[in-house]
Amino acid sequence: MQIVIIGSGNVAYHMAKAFILNNIYLAQIFGRNEKELKKISEELNIPYSTDRIEDADLYIICVSDNSIENVSKVITNKNCLVAHTSGSLPKDILVGEYRKSSFYPLQTFSKSKSLKYSTIPFFIEAENEEDKRFLFEIANKISKNVMESTYEKRKYIHLTAVFACNFVNHLFSRAKEISDSQEIPFDYFFPLIDETVEKIYEIDPKLAQTGPAVRNDKRILELHEQLLKDESLEIYKTMNHSIQKMYEL
Amino acid sequence: MQIVIIGSGNVAYHMAKAFILNNIYLAQIFGRNEKELKKISEELNIPYSTDRIEDADLYIICVSDNSIENVSKVITNKNCLVAHTSGSLPKDILVGEYRKSSFYPLQTFSKSKSLKYSTIPFFIEAENEEDKRFLFEIANKISKNVMESTYEKRKYIHLTAVFACNFVNHLFSRAKEISDSQEIPFDYFFPLIDETVEKIYEIDPKLAQTGPAVRNDKRILELHEQLLKDESLEIYKTMNHSIQKMYEL
Repeated sequence: MQIVIIGSGNVAYHMAKAFILNNIYLAQIFGRNEKELKKISEELNIPYSTDRIEDADLYIICVSDNSIENVSKVITNKNCLVAHTSGSLPKDILVGEYRKSSFYPLQTFSKSKSLKYSTIPFFIEAENEEDKRFLFEIANKISKNVMESTYEKRKYIHLTAVFACNFVNHLFSRAKEISDSQEIPFDYFFPLIDETVEKIYEIDPKLAQTGPAVRNDKRILELHEQLLKDESLEIYKTMNHSIQKMYEL
Repeated sequence: MQIVIIGSGNVAYHMAKAFILNNIYLAQIFGRNEKELKKISEELNIPYSTDRIEDADLYIICVSDNSIENVSKVITNKNCLVAHTSGSLPKDILVGEYRKSSFYPLQTFSKSKSLKYSTIPFFIEAENEEDKRFLFEIANKISKNVMESTYEKRKYIHLTAVFACNFVNHLFSRAKEISDSQEIPFDYFFPLIDETVEKIYEIDPKLAQTGPAVRNDKRILELHEQLLKDESLEIYKTMNHSIQKMYEL
């Protein structure tokens, strides 16, 4: 069974690594960015190419959503299965006469940060039962958490992930900007951040809300607004408004 | 040395527990809400009262910012030290002829969630060296992370905490609202959320940002906006705008 991964970014790197670490042979890693491909190839001992794509049974396209459609056209095989890893695009975004599928890992990937692959939820969609079984078989080697999905559901999974991960990380960035501006070490906040997350394992976040907005503490809300400006002030107002709406304050 | 804690909410409960667990004797827990005081009193074996406040050397006021000023007036002793636990109010919010101080634990407290007290950063302010030493001595019994602060700095610490904790928790609430609406179990997102937080121990959050906004993926941003409404849509737009400003997209 020949498998090729397409891409050289964060997702491509971690998918390649997850495959190799779980004894799933990779025939090639294919992409445009030779420098990045070379690094991955050297670390994981996978052949790479920027111009000659290998014949394969399965291609997994791990490129940004913007590029999936175009990249999918390089696969001219007809008797093969192609998957993309996007959270928000239908499998029909893929352009070709091959069989189409979705292989969506619900995780945030950075090359410089190692990951435990066994807990990543994988969501699978395929055109027929055989392809689905094949993708399940592969994903099950990587993770204990593999499920079938639909495009409709996957869209909402990705949207939820944007709130719970991308936006949370941006709040950390804005928080660090504030603490940096006063020369307050950001690691003071690590126990607080850890606890904020630990809580959601035990308590519905709606019941765990603390802070001046949910107490409707106008004095503090005004004081904080005076300390903020620009985007951080906008975030402050939007989040407080949303908190107060949720609790009907 | 007689110490009294004032209040019966989340902070009062956890401060009382942190004191007791670290062998710091509490003479009384004083407040208005008899039902809550009784529960704390029974769990931690501390005498409580709603009407007769005990003579003490140190009073620690653990009530919401709105109430600190009024509550501080119940202390008529002059030769004593009074601290509040607010992140955003000056110690001079306290009304009385006693010595004033601030004893600020940087953490989020919920009665139903147990906590490791030893990593909580405590920030101390006092009028004189002796009071400062005394408060440090107490805080050092609870935590390995005790620092002096100023009101100016403490305000920004609290503001940073609002972004890194209160707003993050609200994003979890809104995320859960989205996943609940599609009957997607919220625990699918736990590995993602854990990883989002683990990353900040290793990578500056500004360098770890992922998602459609930082990729400027207009197709996905538009798709997501169509799936959202009301406060969640407002949050979506505000956060994306802030992300795109931060990365000059």
